[in-house]
Amino acid sequence: MTGLFSFAVMIDRFVSRSALPLWWWLAPIAAILALGFAVHFYRQMMSHSEGTDQMRFIAQAVRDGAMAYLKRQYRVVGLVFVILFVVFLVLSFFRLQNPIVPFAFLTGGVFSAICGFIGMKAATNASARTANASRTSLNGGLQIALRSGAVMGFVVVGFALLDIALWFLLLYFVFPVLLPNNFISLAENPLPQITAIMLSFGMGASTQALFARVGGGIYTKAADVGADLVGKVEKNIPEDDPRNPATIADNVGDNVGDVAGMGADLYESYAGSILATSALGVAAIGLSTDLFMNGKTELEMGLLYITAPIALAAIGVVLSLIAIYLVRAKDDADQEQLIKALSRGLYFSSAGIAILALPMLFLLGLPNWLAVWICILTGLAVGLIVGKVTEYYTSHAFGPTREIAAQAETSSATALIEGMAVGMESGGIPVAAVVVGIIISFYTMGGIDNLLMGLFGVGMAAVAMLSTLGFTLATDAYGPIADNAGGNAEMSGLDKIVRERTDQLDAVGNTTAAIGKGFAIGSAALTSMALLAAYMEEIRLVLTELRGVESLLVRGELIPVAKMTIENFMDFYHVSLFNPAVLAGIFTGVATAFFFSAMTMRAVGRAATGMVAEVRRQFREIKGIMDGSGLPDYARCVEISTGAAQREMIAPSLVAIIIPVVVGIVFGIAGVLGLLLGTLTTGFSLAITMSNAGGAWDNAKKYIEVGKFGGKGSLAHKAAVVGDTVGDPFKDTSGPALNILIKLMTMVSVVFAGLIVAFSNGQGLLYMLLH
Amino acid sequence: MTGLFSFAVMIDRFVSRSALPLWWWLAPIAAILALGFAVHFYRQMMSHSEGTDQMRFIAQAVRDGAMAYLKRQYRVVGLVFVILFVVFLVLSFFRLQNPIVPFAFLTGGVFSAICGFIGMKAATNASARTANASRTSLNGGLQIALRSGAVMGFVVVGFALLDIALWFLLLYFVFPVLLPNNFISLAENPLPQITAIMLSFGMGASTQALFARVGGGIYTKAADVGADLVGKVEKNIPEDDPRNPATIADNVGDNVGDVAGMGADLYESYAGSILATSALGVAAIGLSTDLFMNGKTELEMGLLYITAPIALAAIGVVLSLIAIYLVRAKDDADQEQLIKALSRGLYFSSAGIAILALPMLFLLGLPNWLAVWICILTGLAVGLIVGKVTEYYTSHAFGPTREIAAQAETSSATALIEGMAVGMESGGIPVAAVVVGIIISFYTMGGIDNLLMGLFGVGMAAVAMLSTLGFTLATDAYGPIADNAGGNAEMSGLDKIVRERTDQLDAVGNTTAAIGKGFAIGSAALTSMALLAAYMEEIRLVLTELRGVESLLVRGELIPVAKMTIENFMDFYHVSLFNPAVLAGIFTGVATAFFFSAMTMRAVGRAATGMVAEVRRQFREIKGIMDGSGLPDYARCVEISTGAAQREMIAPSLVAIIIPVVVGIVFGIAGVLGLLLGTLTTGFSLAITMSNAGGAWDNAKKYIEVGKFGGKGSLAHKAAVVGDTVGDPFKDTSGPALNILIKLMTMVSVVFAGLIVAFSNGQGLLYMLLH
Repeated sequence: MTGLFSFAVMIDRFVSRSALPLWWWLAPIAAILALGFAVHFYRQMMSHSEGTDQMRFIAQAVRDGAMAYLKRQYRVVGLVFVILFVVFLVLSFFRLQNPIVPFAFLTGGVFSAICGFIGMKAATNASARTANASRTSLNGGLQIALRSGAVMGFVVVGFALLDIALWFLLLYFVFPVLLPNNFISLAENPLPQITAIMLSFGMGASTQALFARVGGGIYTKAADVGADLVGKVEKNIPEDDPRNPATIADNVGDNVGDVAGMGADLYESYAGSILATSALGVAAIGLSTDLFMNGKTELEMGLLYITAPIALAAIGVVLSLIAIYLVRAKDDADQEQLIKALSRGLYFSSAGIAILALPMLFLLGLPNWLAVWICILTGLAVGLIVGKVTEYYTSHAFGPTREIAAQAETSSATALIEGMAVGMESGGIPVAAVVVGIIISFYTMGGIDNLLMGLFGVGMAAVAMLSTLGFTLATDAYGPIADNAGGNAEMSGLDKIVRERTDQLDAVGNTTAAIGKGFAIGSAALTSMALLAAYMEEIRLVLTELRGVESLLVRGELIPVAKMTIENFMDFYHVSLFNPAVLAGIFTGVATAFFFSAMTMRAVGRAATGMVAEVRRQFREIKGIMDGSGLPDYARCVEISTGAAQREMIAPSLVAIIIPVVVGIVFGIAGVLGLLLGTLTTGFSLAITMSNAGGAWDNAKKYIEVGKFGGKGSLAHKAAVVGDTVGDPFKDTSGPALNILIKLMTMVSVVFAGLIVAFSNGQGLLYMLLH
Repeated sequence: MTGLFSFAVMIDRFVSRSALPLWWWLAPIAAILALGFAVHFYRQMMSHSEGTDQMRFIAQAVRDGAMAYLKRQYRVVGLVFVILFVVFLVLSFFRLQNPIVPFAFLTGGVFSAICGFIGMKAATNASARTANASRTSLNGGLQIALRSGAVMGFVVVGFALLDIALWFLLLYFVFPVLLPNNFISLAENPLPQITAIMLSFGMGASTQALFARVGGGIYTKAADVGADLVGKVEKNIPEDDPRNPATIADNVGDNVGDVAGMGADLYESYAGSILATSALGVAAIGLSTDLFMNGKTELEMGLLYITAPIALAAIGVVLSLIAIYLVRAKDDADQEQLIKALSRGLYFSSAGIAILALPMLFLLGLPNWLAVWICILTGLAVGLIVGKVTEYYTSHAFGPTREIAAQAETSSATALIEGMAVGMESGGIPVAAVVVGIIISFYTMGGIDNLLMGLFGVGMAAVAMLSTLGFTLATDAYGPIADNAGGNAEMSGLDKIVRERTDQLDAVGNTTAAIGKGFAIGSAALTSMALLAAYMEEIRLVLTELRGVESLLVRGELIPVAKMTIENFMDFYHVSLFNPAVLAGIFTGVATAFFFSAMTMRAVGRAATGMVAEVRRQFREIKGIMDGSGLPDYARCVEISTGAAQREMIAPSLVAIIIPVVVGIVFGIAGVLGLLLGTLTTGFSLAITMSNAGGAWDNAKKYIEVGKFGGKGSLAHKAAVVGDTVGDPFKDTSGPALNILIKLMTMVSVVFAGLIVAFSNGQGLLYMLLH
């Protein structure tokens, strides 16, 4: 009877549940649109010819290598996911986590893996076709490369929005009816619980992303460093020369690192920023006064704040699609015109977001629509500034990179010192931009007295930066495709003009990619801020839903957990700058960022050494490689990179997962907050330093190669090659991986919050022992 | 009449003022002892012969260059001091700072400058004498070099203790009688004010130290890099070859960077740790319950806690003196025996502190003497661990450095990647040790409920580490003296055996210096922690003494400022991890550490480029340099280094002074605390990374030079030289300067606290604008 009655209650709740705002439905529609166009772009690209037999042969070799790598990577990562899945099942069995979490975690990882797979399939199919089209015209190559990159771009945004929309529908409408009470809250307002569960979907994506970035980064740089050191430096043969045994592995590396790795990275950023912002919107409403209510219920208002970020993302998808079609260049276009063509797409989509967001927010009915709009503008501005600064420090059109080239004339050592200095300096303005962005968003929306709403504003700024990801990711993925096309042209012995064209495409890609990177790095910092607050919301839920704690004694006053402000939580958990637990956390967080970088760099070093030994061996033992009468064993080099990446990616990734849990157990919630803050701030500066130092060395070398300071083969060039090689793991392994490290550590903290609270009441073992 | 009356009151207060504890008087006695022995060591060294005419000539050239540099540096720094002195005068005129502060600030700078001067005079006089004594025996060279280093060691501890003791006597006994009311408090307990004023003496020392470290660091590395790149790499002539025009400048550099720079650095650390700890002891007593009173007055108890750190330092002076006499080796001693001889001194003095501290604390009468003793043991243990880890990562007796050498066989790029990884990794255990040290000291002494006493414990741990500075600094300064002796031997064409002996002395110095560095770095981190709390105490004083604020409304409750806990201050100034002002501060602090490193490294790069151009010019234009028939223009190179160092040291140093003031004005006290925390944590990790990466590269090169991986002249050696050159500014300019940056920024915050509080009530301009 009671069962029947509660079932009736459930049905009643389901039926009477507020309908979703109309704008919400834009998300699934945009998702399907994005996926549809991804299929369209893929088919369009596949309809072109791969060119000569030799081109096809080489493309196939790269394809095979890339797919073989991805399969092995997914097998290793799959194992990690199974282990974590079981851990989460155990946690939920002991009521330390919601039982839906393990499944949400899984889908996040699986969807991300699918994106990586499709994106790389498109990229590896596109390179020969881009090279072939470049035989006819520059614009032909541009169109194929960009649209193949767009496959990745739209698969990522499509799947991310689809996954978010589907999970929300399931958790909001279906699960409350199908699953028993304790799976999903029957309270008036289930949104806090729903958004918290969905964050674990973000952890799945982050875990996948870290493995993809670290593994891909190690793979690509081991191959690159190996190929360069023996081929270019010792044997004096050019880049992508088919006589170099590591050259196929090098081309595979571009795909697994710069395409699959980056795709997983941005999938995680995109989904993470939307999910964190939604969670904060709901939380802010939960604590808000009547000011924001407009006579609506908490649930109705919460739905509006959940809708805002995903509707913004959906608008971005449509704008990105149009932007792709705006990129067009004449067949005889020069580099400047190409840059203009790509920039047109970028500025169109950004301006579109700025303009369309205003009516959307107004029509959606947010009470503070104007303030939210200002946050969106702020986010776009910050992204643009970070991007432009990145360009300034890494492009050889500007002073810093040219200065490195000039120092290369003195020696490799001075070029290296100057490059490190450029990298370290380049974080100054981005940090200032992010700080100003946080301040503006925060104070426009809430201020200290309405902290959660302020942080929701910070989250919206991050979502705005990433809203046009469909387009920016296309321009990002386009770079390695053009690069690979060049490799293919070289190895297939095509006309010099083809290689020149693909080089031009590649160079143009670097400029737009810099701005894309700015958006990615800037949004990572802002998202992490939002995630910090989301972590505190998770603690609230753990207390109320899992531990059944209704109120806590804060400074002598009994406060209901549901109404506790973040300040109350800070008090209860002794989160003060002078609490040694917080300090220990910050110190540990900072050290983790450095230690993690050390691990990834050393992994590249080890893997590269193995590759160098193998390439040297082949040159020594296989006869006739240099005169073309003997064929190098490409497959062996591919295998070495694959094996090394698999081995080496485990340890750094585990660090990211284990440290937050250990710090949480020992130092409690105060320690975790310190830890995350330490990793966030230092990781941000360190990531920019490493990425930009690497980029600047790379382009200093290219600057010399266009004939400055003696040109190719000069002493200055040799010195610059050393810089470029040192910069490889900086910019393609450690730097980008730091961005994910920051977020994965936060996600891990969120998902394991139940354990930490259960273990020591959230105060940490140390506190329990001493008090 | 009232004047007469208040005078009578003053006299009465003076007479009835508590006598200082007997142990306190140990400090001036130890100071005079230290200075006396410094004079003795100096005379002893001067009584030896400088050797041949050529030796004398070279020594004189180095001496002249060093003194010329120091004079110009002091002129520039003097100007900065005059400006800051005037700024402080203006501040005190507007009652934003105590009028004694400008003078205390000045003496800190002047005493530090005197130490640098004397230390360098001893070092530059000792090098030829060490070389000459090494002609006879190894032990002869050891004795002269070590005792000359000891001149620096004991001058530093002597002057620091003397200055502290004199100022205390002035402020405690003399000024209250001589100066009007508002100069020094007439309250029952003037100690908080006295310790606060004395902290500004620390700022004088820090300012001097930063300029000395940055200027000296730029000088030495510009000369070193210039000499190496042209001489060793291009001309293939050995180190210290008299044909190299930069060789005298290089030897001068060792003196101005590694002797004068390091002396100023450690003078600042030593004085800073004692002053900050005293301030915390007094503050802790001010808030303590009867628990700590033992029936005594607050003043009496405060005096005990002021005495504890200086008595500990005084005991350390005596132990250090004995340790110097314990170092003795046989004339035919090998390297291992030499290391044992030096280690004997180190372990004796450390163990002595551990043992003697216990009765001292007990007899002094500290209620928590046992807990304080545990803090002292903790400090010594942390220093030893950091030192041993430093040795592990930078000595070629162990894996990491050998691995770099192995990577040098592959290429310079892989050696650089590996070295960066080693540096970044090497911070892990030191950070853990410091964190554990903080936790143990903090909880043994106080815990969260007695925060200030806990931080006093952290300060005592720092003082313990530095207590044997007299000896450790002697072993530190001994290195460059031996190095210079080698240079002198080489240039004077002495027997090979002499150079071998001085090389041996130098190598042994590196090992003991590693441990000394561990003590310096570890104590810097702990001292900064203590300084953070001292900053809050300064705020309290500014409110009560300068602004006349008696009580503040904290969370609806009116609390007397004198009785506000640090937690109360945190509440009042909104110092919460989620306040964007704090976040902005942390982000800025982190970015400052990176930016500062970039500036100093780039300065070295620029200066080195100038030097390289000059050396190349001399080789080109002055005929017969290579065959010895023409004399290089040494003086021109000395001038170039001097000029470059003067120019380049200004900007980075200003950053350290201006940023805390700007952040304070904009973001208030909350922002300043975030800033200091960000710089402290990141600066610590970054400093270790840079110092150890540099050290490891240096020793990897030396490992190859003793015959491994092909030995001198091999490709591996060339690759290792690149690493060594990149590492030069890492380990001798940016890394050590970061340590001072951390503390100078805190000192600046302390001294400008009055301005910040006056300007925006301490809440910051941003808050004022928005609320």
